[in-house]
Amino acid sequence: VDSMRDIGIGILGFGTVGAGVADGLQRNARVIGSRLGLLPVIRRIADVDLGTDRGVTVDPDILTQDAESVVRDPDVRVVVELIGGTETARDLVMQALELGKPVVTANKALLAEYGREIFALAEQRQVDLYFGASVGGGIPVIRALREGLIGNEIHGIQGILNGTCNYILTRMEAEGLDFEQALDEAQAKGYAEADPALDIDGYDTAHKAVILASLAYGFSVPMASVAVEGIRGISETDIRYAGDLGYRIKLLAVIKRVGSGVEVRVHPTLVPLETILASVDGVYNAVMVHGDLVGKTLYYGRGAGREPTASTVISDIAEVMKNLEGGFRRPLGALAQTADPAQVMDIGDVITRFYLRLSLLDRPGVLGSIANSLGSHGICIASVLQKKISQGDYVPVVIVTHQAREGELNAALAEIDGMEIVGSPTVKFRIEE
Amino acid sequence: VDSMRDIGIGILGFGTVGAGVADGLQRNARVIGSRLGLLPVIRRIADVDLGTDRGVTVDPDILTQDAESVVRDPDVRVVVELIGGTETARDLVMQALELGKPVVTANKALLAEYGREIFALAEQRQVDLYFGASVGGGIPVIRALREGLIGNEIHGIQGILNGTCNYILTRMEAEGLDFEQALDEAQAKGYAEADPALDIDGYDTAHKAVILASLAYGFSVPMASVAVEGIRGISETDIRYAGDLGYRIKLLAVIKRVGSGVEVRVHPTLVPLETILASVDGVYNAVMVHGDLVGKTLYYGRGAGREPTASTVISDIAEVMKNLEGGFRRPLGALAQTADPAQVMDIGDVITRFYLRLSLLDRPGVLGSIANSLGSHGICIASVLQKKISQGDYVPVVIVTHQAREGELNAALAEIDGMEIVGSPTVKFRIEE
Repeated sequence: VDSMRDIGIGILGFGTVGAGVADGLQRNARVIGSRLGLLPVIRRIADVDLGTDRGVTVDPDILTQDAESVVRDPDVRVVVELIGGTETARDLVMQALELGKPVVTANKALLAEYGREIFALAEQRQVDLYFGASVGGGIPVIRALREGLIGNEIHGIQGILNGTCNYILTRMEAEGLDFEQALDEAQAKGYAEADPALDIDGYDTAHKAVILASLAYGFSVPMASVAVEGIRGISETDIRYAGDLGYRIKLLAVIKRVGSGVEVRVHPTLVPLETILASVDGVYNAVMVHGDLVGKTLYYGRGAGREPTASTVISDIAEVMKNLEGGFRRPLGALAQTADPAQVMDIGDVITRFYLRLSLLDRPGVLGSIANSLGSHGICIASVLQKKISQGDYVPVVIVTHQAREGELNAALAEIDGMEIVGSPTVKFRIEE
Repeated sequence: VDSMRDIGIGILGFGTVGAGVADGLQRNARVIGSRLGLLPVIRRIADVDLGTDRGVTVDPDILTQDAESVVRDPDVRVVVELIGGTETARDLVMQALELGKPVVTANKALLAEYGREIFALAEQRQVDLYFGASVGGGIPVIRALREGLIGNEIHGIQGILNGTCNYILTRMEAEGLDFEQALDEAQAKGYAEADPALDIDGYDTAHKAVILASLAYGFSVPMASVAVEGIRGISETDIRYAGDLGYRIKLLAVIKRVGSGVEVRVHPTLVPLETILASVDGVYNAVMVHGDLVGKTLYYGRGAGREPTASTVISDIAEVMKNLEGGFRRPLGALAQTADPAQVMDIGDVITRFYLRLSLLDRPGVLGSIANSLGSHGICIASVLQKKISQGDYVPVVIVTHQAREGELNAALAEIDGMEIVGSPTVKFRIEE
């Protein structure tokens, strides 16, 4: 190891992940060197706050509050952006790329907001940009898409990409908690932010879906084209009924090639209990990738946290070091295109099966009216589950449909929810088999 | 793509996987080029049989029966060994490495038998050797260990690595088949060889365990040091009792660091029903890797077959091309050591929990005798399941132990199986939580 060539690393941001990366690089230097043949050495670390104990010992001389000086330092050959946020991070990343220095980042918000210009600059300057930890934390799924499955056309991706949501849904089912109780628990355990909106409303998952879709299909996907629904509307009742029907509700990112179009959508989804995705519980994430050669593959692990994220950042650093040493860079391909993005399918054109929970008057003939309305929009019923629980004059009735176009289903529901036999708006979830 | 630099590939072996690789490289050339920035071009394909239709169209001029001429061809810069078997494959791989040409192989038998000399020659000649498809078929788990988890010390690995065995166990449970019926079905469907011994006796899994253990811990693991049990001894009765206790029986490779030692073992194992490994069914494979930074990660997919294997071979070819272009090679590290291998722990020293199925005379006090014998060897009982089914004068009794050293347990069982209250030898399986 001592005679091994080393490459200087500069870390921007000495918070949770930055400290984890510094710790991992120092602690596992020997094993990294033996696997890579090169030694990563931390030359500089920048943070505005140098007073807080980070739980890792570093040479105090390498610490600075001046992030730009780290980017410019000639001994720093790889810039690792772990500041978070978008504005300062963007400026520093663009400076590094302008200087021809490869960048490793875990910042999905940065890529979702400024991805096109950052990718374009990296391509123009022919510099490496690695962002493995922006999706799936410790799970090497970006690596799999860029490298392990490089020979595959991608048919589709389904992902559980947000540990906060998955924890809440797991606890709602396991303990019969309602949404608010499970959220409180997640916050008490540090699995949810004080302001949990980004997670529970599905936008964190959508940011990641945009990155995965772009990698899989080679075009820039605007956030605005993604249909996003979060988990606030999921009741413990629906979790129970889904279970009776053989399903579990997960917040899923669904990315799928359909003909010449691509679906990119994020919403609560019923998945069959016997599938692997259904068995992913707690704060764990998982991504199922379906390739034309490989068939179905799945990647599972912790989607967030200091050390899992550090694991992926370190593997990106290692890959960039290897590329630097060889004068190679991994192309960003169509991610760097500045032309108009391709069209993501409108959610109304998506064809899938649906779970519907209706609140119907408890009297003969009502189910017939519902079936007629669905039928007049070309929607067939696959099964009906009627629980003997009345809510006042109304009883809950669950209908599972065969495949239907969402636009047609919505038209039918508008009609159904206007009927006087219906007590409250129908609850609708999509099903993925 | 037309202006992209290309790199010549030579394929040795035009059988199932060879044809799959040729097909995949041709079919997905555009997407590979866009992701890699380099274009793989098949210059030569060698096979003794050039008459059989391979289901893929290649230029007839590149076909030859002379494999050595492919290795020597100056236009062939990457040699892809897909012949299978060990002797011819070994000679050709060694020739390629001697010529300084990087080799991609999917041949686990070759690596298990001649790995040390092949790794050593690759290291001596400073040439790349990639073998991603030797474990897990389409699952990029070798890639994950060499690259995605490069920053991690590996605590342990648990793998379902043989699709034939997993199919048989899945069918035994789902349909209540006995082992022979399930094996017949697997053979009829082409999931098991006419001579299935290599698969069902655990040796295929052990070959893969040896490769994973070597990668994880950086030392050469001799096959002879691995404790191997196959699935012939599993009865439908044990599958059912395991289910009653909340477990499913899987053929598992277990690799684990314990203090300064390493366990490498292959045997039928009870895994809790709610775990992801338990939900891996049919011909699918899965590998759980536990790293110090990343925590638990799992990789799942098809472990064999023309196209999944081709997917991984193609990703190895792409990586070797990238390395070639940059003048880099990925070190084999301790895999190439020719010094004495480290010591794998004796199975008698392994500490784990056990499932025991005893056949006991149906009369008062017998369970007390068993408990006394176990207790005298320091083994504690966690639970007892007594089924009200008598087999002649005997009843089946299932005991789950707390953690115990296997050597102690075997001593207790020798004593127990000699008692006259015991009708037939006790069935023993290990449990992994």
